[in-house]
Amino acid sequence: MSVKMIVVGSVAYDSLQTPKGKRERALGGSAVYFSTVASYFTNVGLVGVAGKDFEASHIDFLKNHGVDLAGFDLKKEGETFHWAGSYGEDFGDATTHDTRLNVFESFDPKLPEDYRNAELVFLGNIHPALQLKVIELVNKPKIIALDTMNLWINTTRDLLKQAVAKVDILFINFQEALMLAEEKKFAPAVHKLLQMGPKRIIVKMGELGAMTATKEARFFVPAYPCLDITDPTGAGDSFGGGFMGSLARHGDYSENGFRRSMLYGAAMGSITVENFSLDSYLALKPELIEERYQALKKMVTLD
Amino acid sequence: MSVKMIVVGSVAYDSLQTPKGKRERALGGSAVYFSTVASYFTNVGLVGVAGKDFEASHIDFLKNHGVDLAGFDLKKEGETFHWAGSYGEDFGDATTHDTRLNVFESFDPKLPEDYRNAELVFLGNIHPALQLKVIELVNKPKIIALDTMNLWINTTRDLLKQAVAKVDILFINFQEALMLAEEKKFAPAVHKLLQMGPKRIIVKMGELGAMTATKEARFFVPAYPCLDITDPTGAGDSFGGGFMGSLARHGDYSENGFRRSMLYGAAMGSITVENFSLDSYLALKPELIEERYQALKKMVTLD
Repeated sequence: MSVKMIVVGSVAYDSLQTPKGKRERALGGSAVYFSTVASYFTNVGLVGVAGKDFEASHIDFLKNHGVDLAGFDLKKEGETFHWAGSYGEDFGDATTHDTRLNVFESFDPKLPEDYRNAELVFLGNIHPALQLKVIELVNKPKIIALDTMNLWINTTRDLLKQAVAKVDILFINFQEALMLAEEKKFAPAVHKLLQMGPKRIIVKMGELGAMTATKEARFFVPAYPCLDITDPTGAGDSFGGGFMGSLARHGDYSENGFRRSMLYGAAMGSITVENFSLDSYLALKPELIEERYQALKKMVTLD
Repeated sequence: MSVKMIVVGSVAYDSLQTPKGKRERALGGSAVYFSTVASYFTNVGLVGVAGKDFEASHIDFLKNHGVDLAGFDLKKEGETFHWAGSYGEDFGDATTHDTRLNVFESFDPKLPEDYRNAELVFLGNIHPALQLKVIELVNKPKIIALDTMNLWINTTRDLLKQAVAKVDILFINFQEALMLAEEKKFAPAVHKLLQMGPKRIIVKMGELGAMTATKEARFFVPAYPCLDITDPTGAGDSFGGGFMGSLARHGDYSENGFRRSMLYGAAMGSITVENFSLDSYLALKPELIEERYQALKKMVTLD
């Protein structure tokens, strides 16, 4: 069966500390979070690279979720990308203690032939040159979405803008939206980002939720109120996986379809942060997704 | 005609600088913003104090809006509360350059007899002891709402908590919500504030919008996207005036009625910040209120 959606991004081991505890070499990376979450909605292929230290149990974890690994490059040499960081009491921005790119440094995404016809493409937070390369490789997908981060805004702004101009949806967080737009206020920043080319932007605002805007419309979804966060790592990619997964599953590309997908994004982000790493997906009851979706829907319903 | 709603709060002259320009001794104060805005929705009485320098044209401005001034104490001695401050490029928190309480220092709110039977009471951001006094004076209104600020959280936390415990609705901004709850994260802060006694809280989040929560429900409204802010002073009190005004006008105290009122609050906040001081209300076309309301409604509608 060919895949309906692909994600290109990082595969990582994260050593992290949060106010709730410590984990060494926990499974992580944007493509891993995205594909695991999206697997609850659609047939998804992961394009990424890992080293010889990548554990068989983690391959099994992805396979058990039905994630297609035809584009997963498991190297016989070198180590998997490793990130070490910690979160303070407010679970805000992480402090990075160590970053070892390892095999990820020379990551050169290759798409299996059928991946080029995927209907939806998610470009995780990787170098904009690689994002541009993937954009060239795919064959007119219905949706190309791109995520990025402050590093690329600061170091490769021009390339990033070239990539942003070619996608349908830009995922970005609040501070980065202001940075990329070079604006100090939110409304003008949103306006400017939409002028850069994407049809739609999705601004992630952490515990406040997320906003989506087109030139005609905008819509806010609150974060599901998690009273007990354990590990915020991967919240954004999980939002992306839920959002894009919902689009893939429902095939509804109307404004209302995008709004519904915002709720699924928020639902999945909330599920991810309740446990370390991807532990929430070790034995997730799919009913929980619908429960969260319905709870969020109640929060945005006005008669 | 007796008033349906009363507001108790400050009457001020503001000397301020924003990236858009400067104003000296512009009309301001929480009770002035609130009552002017609310006058587009209902019959509102202003309880406040001003000094001998308070201009006749400003009395006329309030009267022309139909604001009832039976509880407005215009002193023959002393000066009106004067605040001087400036906003930076991001129109974020103001920097205070000078505060002269003047006649406001000994403000002792007195309620005309019929004010005690007002259906809705808004306690603007004044000393919690005065808020408590007004709560004792009124005769079972349907809604008592209270606004506060970091000053009272820091200096009179216990009195403030006593007042908060006795009201139906607590208005508070995002940072102050964390401060008052002594929490670092939003969701636990909301939970704790609701345990303090109010049936509902409304958290103002500036350019991101506002959230309302009860123990059972929560709802977000985005800020109307103003591309051209002139002066953020009074945005919160204008939100309050629109919210409470809408409740007063529609008499709908269901969850849906409160949600609709959140949209009116956001609409009025957006109108206020487009011009200095209360200039937006010198010749406001009431159709603009409905236009903003409808635009905001489109931003929160999900089929």
